[in-house]
Amino acid sequence: MRDVSIIGIGQYEVGEHWDKSLRELGYYALAAAMKDAKVERLDAMYVGNMLSGELTNQEHIGALISDFAGLRGIEAIKIEAACGSGGAAMRIGYTAVAGGLHDIVACIGVEKMTDQQASTTTSSLATASDADYEALHGLSFVSINALLMRRYMHEYGYRKDDFANFAINAHANAVNNPYAMFPSPISAKAFAEAKPIADPINLLDSSPIADGAACVILAPTSIAKEFTDNPIRVKASAIATDTLAVHDRRDPLYLEGGAISAQKAYAAAGIGPNDIDVFELHDAFTIMSALSLEASGFAARGHGVRLAMEGHIGIGGRVPITTMGGLKARGHPVGATGIYQIAEVATQLRGQAGPNQVKNARLGMAQNIGGSGATVVTTILERI
Amino acid sequence: MRDVSIIGIGQYEVGEHWDKSLRELGYYALAAAMKDAKVERLDAMYVGNMLSGELTNQEHIGALISDFAGLRGIEAIKIEAACGSGGAAMRIGYTAVAGGLHDIVACIGVEKMTDQQASTTTSSLATASDADYEALHGLSFVSINALLMRRYMHEYGYRKDDFANFAINAHANAVNNPYAMFPSPISAKAFAEAKPIADPINLLDSSPIADGAACVILAPTSIAKEFTDNPIRVKASAIATDTLAVHDRRDPLYLEGGAISAQKAYAAAGIGPNDIDVFELHDAFTIMSALSLEASGFAARGHGVRLAMEGHIGIGGRVPITTMGGLKARGHPVGATGIYQIAEVATQLRGQAGPNQVKNARLGMAQNIGGSGATVVTTILERI
Repeated sequence: MRDVSIIGIGQYEVGEHWDKSLRELGYYALAAAMKDAKVERLDAMYVGNMLSGELTNQEHIGALISDFAGLRGIEAIKIEAACGSGGAAMRIGYTAVAGGLHDIVACIGVEKMTDQQASTTTSSLATASDADYEALHGLSFVSINALLMRRYMHEYGYRKDDFANFAINAHANAVNNPYAMFPSPISAKAFAEAKPIADPINLLDSSPIADGAACVILAPTSIAKEFTDNPIRVKASAIATDTLAVHDRRDPLYLEGGAISAQKAYAAAGIGPNDIDVFELHDAFTIMSALSLEASGFAARGHGVRLAMEGHIGIGGRVPITTMGGLKARGHPVGATGIYQIAEVATQLRGQAGPNQVKNARLGMAQNIGGSGATVVTTILERI
Repeated sequence: MRDVSIIGIGQYEVGEHWDKSLRELGYYALAAAMKDAKVERLDAMYVGNMLSGELTNQEHIGALISDFAGLRGIEAIKIEAACGSGGAAMRIGYTAVAGGLHDIVACIGVEKMTDQQASTTTSSLATASDADYEALHGLSFVSINALLMRRYMHEYGYRKDDFANFAINAHANAVNNPYAMFPSPISAKAFAEAKPIADPINLLDSSPIADGAACVILAPTSIAKEFTDNPIRVKASAIATDTLAVHDRRDPLYLEGGAISAQKAYAAAGIGPNDIDVFELHDAFTIMSALSLEASGFAARGHGVRLAMEGHIGIGGRVPITTMGGLKARGHPVGATGIYQIAEVATQLRGQAGPNQVKNARLGMAQNIGGSGATVVTTILERI
């Protein structure tokens, strides 16, 4: 297998883009990444997206975006794994380049969610859960996460406010991210007083519905320097699944898919969690941050939330997470999120994160979660 | 890159399966293929599907099926390219095995379409076309194909009945396919008198909406004999795109994506169309058969329909097509179709096609088309 690097990054700002179509969003991110990589052609593109059919009446968006970008003829396929679609598209792109089938590949994540009423979007998001055994009975994603958070608080004796720093840290970091949807700080008081959504989850535990698109361009490391002065190596790419329904898990508070994919990635990279300088985790809700930290080996079971409480998750902390705002404050255009995470880690490793730069960052990790943990994609990047 | 072979085939009968869920259909095909290959574990599965979200409120079906099959933990991803989703899943599976990332991989195609009213299914199918510039203006897939057929008849001077043999041949062959939805012959008279759907397309030009699932298991050819006595080599796998909307094509009657993907596949296999013994083409409508034959080099422009008129497309003919019934009579569960085609070609090359066996078949080709030609996947298989 060939060594693979990221040679280009493109992001479009996350927000409510009522004046931009799905194809425009995808194209803007792709064009920015191709410009960054100084490439004018591609061998293939893999488009991570979850809800184009449900929310914009458009499937077949591999062809849609390759056509709109003037790249007709190339291999172009939509990749779907719920909120893990972006990470899965990265995994497929990595597979194609590492395996020698393609040289220059774009991994795009794109989602357009805000054209529909929130109730439609919420029920469409529930298609990531088990339609027959979860969604049909009225569970939405926020309510599934509320059950997990309640259980976590009960098992380990935490209060709701113990989760506050996940949200506060994310918003503090988003201030310096030009692509963030909510680049504004929040206070502990605001968190404590935020409106409940599904108890114990409140508005500021929750990442927002959003439109957005991001893209990275991959190439064999052997030729990466022809395109960029600062290629970022994809040191590991791993994906694992778990039961679709939470009630089928051996332990609902353990992200087994997260643990398997992280272990695979660590093994492939020959490192452990202590070697990671930046960790973009999947903070769809604050509880998911805690579970992701634990599954990935950054904290013991029941201790993930302590990393936030004790102030270890900031830019200068022991485990810097959501360094550009995370899903919470950058925004969570579901199928695009996995690529935003990778773009942000790569930006950190390039040393281009501005005021949010993690000093001497050499190894970074992104973990993208589909559903309530049924798909987890872990990607480890390295500054060369 | 490694040489790749099919070591297992599984098909579930195409039909209206109101008593079977999406996960059951997918699992039945997977289990049959795993049994055929005598494998009990997989490294990954790629699930071709177009409309699970729209029609069954279920996305995330990679995890759904791996979970239901007792394979939790493995890599499992949904692959979407409209009616070309099955072929695209095959392409990704081939990429993973050829590239050395995985050894034993399942490529599944599954679709469940008949639980909804036909009007819902028809509008969901239109998400394969350009939502903003085709579907929004009232074009459905049958009407797009009707426009193409009318134009073809006008340009080349054919009558509607000249297309009859595509449907008659497909139905004649389906009689011996235990997985076919319509295993019953039709007459020229029945074709001539069939109800119009969108003039000039009538009911018997059109493939049926259906439920179904099929699966093939891939492995490196170097170890294929450990699993099966008759591995079938994947000699080439190629995918190409074209404009999403038909009106953007340089010539609406030329499937440029089909031509590019066929040329890529022929080049990779070191052969030409004259070497192909069996061709499973994408006869969603009879016009599409003619265009696919022309784009793939079996007939000159405007001559595709002649192959049917002059009797060359039967089992013993010069270009045997739809040898197990095709989309027309086997049925067209859209995202599953591409894998059924590959399963059927592989069955022919194994010499297991029963009364429909093409004698001494050594090289076979499947061509799976997404939308009205915006994605075309061409796969060439070889008896080893």
